[in-house]
Amino acid sequence: MTTARQVHLVRRPGGMPVPEDFAIVEAPLADAGEGEIQVQGLILSVDPYMRPRLNADQKLGEAMAGGGIGRVVQSRNPKFREGEIVRHGQGFSERFNSDGRGVQVLNPDPDLPLSVYMHALGGTGITAYGGLLETGALKDGEQVFVSTAAGAVGSVAAQIAKIKGCYVIGSTGSDDKKRWLLEEAGLDAAINYRSENLRSALKAAAPRGIDVYFENVGGAHLDAALACMNLRGRIAVCGMISTYNGEREGVRNLSVLIYGRMRMEGFVASDFPHLQEQFQADMTGWLKSGRIRYQETVLEGFERAPEALIGLFEGRNAGKMLVRV
Amino acid sequence: MTTARQVHLVRRPGGMPVPEDFAIVEAPLADAGEGEIQVQGLILSVDPYMRPRLNADQKLGEAMAGGGIGRVVQSRNPKFREGEIVRHGQGFSERFNSDGRGVQVLNPDPDLPLSVYMHALGGTGITAYGGLLETGALKDGEQVFVSTAAGAVGSVAAQIAKIKGCYVIGSTGSDDKKRWLLEEAGLDAAINYRSENLRSALKAAAPRGIDVYFENVGGAHLDAALACMNLRGRIAVCGMISTYNGEREGVRNLSVLIYGRMRMEGFVASDFPHLQEQFQADMTGWLKSGRIRYQETVLEGFERAPEALIGLFEGRNAGKMLVRV
Repeated sequence: MTTARQVHLVRRPGGMPVPEDFAIVEAPLADAGEGEIQVQGLILSVDPYMRPRLNADQKLGEAMAGGGIGRVVQSRNPKFREGEIVRHGQGFSERFNSDGRGVQVLNPDPDLPLSVYMHALGGTGITAYGGLLETGALKDGEQVFVSTAAGAVGSVAAQIAKIKGCYVIGSTGSDDKKRWLLEEAGLDAAINYRSENLRSALKAAAPRGIDVYFENVGGAHLDAALACMNLRGRIAVCGMISTYNGEREGVRNLSVLIYGRMRMEGFVASDFPHLQEQFQADMTGWLKSGRIRYQETVLEGFERAPEALIGLFEGRNAGKMLVRV
Repeated sequence: MTTARQVHLVRRPGGMPVPEDFAIVEAPLADAGEGEIQVQGLILSVDPYMRPRLNADQKLGEAMAGGGIGRVVQSRNPKFREGEIVRHGQGFSERFNSDGRGVQVLNPDPDLPLSVYMHALGGTGITAYGGLLETGALKDGEQVFVSTAAGAVGSVAAQIAKIKGCYVIGSTGSDDKKRWLLEEAGLDAAINYRSENLRSALKAAAPRGIDVYFENVGGAHLDAALACMNLRGRIAVCGMISTYNGEREGVRNLSVLIYGRMRMEGFVASDFPHLQEQFQADMTGWLKSGRIRYQETVLEGFERAPEALIGLFEGRNAGKMLVRV
């Protein structure tokens, strides 16, 4: 028997979340029962998808749902050994018991920081990998455009395309991120869509057109990309953030799909279980060799999870937002 | 040596074409030279694509470009025999000489009218067949929506879907056409998009959603279809007529592609040469058994070609517009 802390949502935010919407709750935690494991949290993942859940699925007075990495500290379940590192979906819990469902044993590479299993080697990474290579059917050396290319998924997609010998253009929302794309991630061209005219900048950056557009934005971004797409181009639709807050911009250039014989297709991370093994092998190698770069913002201390979440929504992170327990 | 008539464009229309924009020109026609054939026109195809060409590619003082069916009356080309029926792209010419390029020998089925080789067994038919079965990857028994389902392509697509055991909804612009879709073409549901609220009518007509949308319209039609699409639905994009005249309606529902894992893909008639043989066999059988119905408006007399063209643009046709030479 011990005690453990959880972060609860105690009030639905009216607009931007504030610290008072959350509470750190400490409660007794029994030892693992028959068939159970007890997991000590190590790293918490803080993600954009959490925002809509605060006013919808997330229950009040329960631990915030989310992904994390922990260590098995007690095991009465034959599938787990004490000391093993696991990836779980138990959210903002410092320590918890589980029957093992949804808990996956990791064999983390000793030469990589554990945190990469929360992004480049996690759901973010497989989303970029599967979306680009399978949905986008990327061929080596093609012309690629990635929107929000400095984001968690976009940055991985753009760098995989570079590894595949492609010419890669990325869009992003600040000059700092643009610099990161060009100088760290090694993209061929980058556009700050807040300060530049996206359509003309994209035309200028894509003299040989676009074969694959990795779509995260929708609206005006999609119209600008459609105007540059090559014959039999593919648009892999990962997200359309411009449409999520209601002010949906209409897309006007879709008729180019016809004579261009273009394909546009949606996907989510869970579409690619058959690619998981190859993805793990490829991505581990690319991270170890430094061919995939990433950014992380890590807050130290379990109690800082609400601050991390609010900071994410305020854009105070560079790259993946994490909390070290 | 004989003489033959042609229909020339003599003036670019300012708005709707008028008879004075055209002229019937009679000129001497030499016998077929070495390597040539002489073809007597039988049927002329009159098509919507001709409208934009009147103010663009179509040359003044030359025969209007277009498709037709004729009979070989002289042959000095070993690939053709006198008496053969051919399909050609020589346009509004009563009789002409050709080196044989772009001229295709037909072996018309004696139980079918020759005119069907200008629509259901021609480019219109293969567009519907390939777009629905290959681009749309239609499976037997699926839920299908066809826009402008009484049109030349749409009517064939909708009836092929019925033959494949699908539940088929069609949209059209008049109550007469709606009646034809339900009573002649055998669709399960039809919507007059001019008099009904398309979005709610489509929701009501598609209780099990839509697996394949055969898209001819774009804009509000596409938004209405997207709101009904099933998981892994396919949108085969044949046309987007709502966008052709400049007043492009923006499409706002595209983000459903993501979680719906939907695919949207453009195509044109020439994408399906590998399906041609199977298409000819299937469609010949369907037409002979009456499983594919069609409508034709046939004007008698070569000199009526301008009237047919103007009539098409004014919507005075039911089904395919043709001229019998």
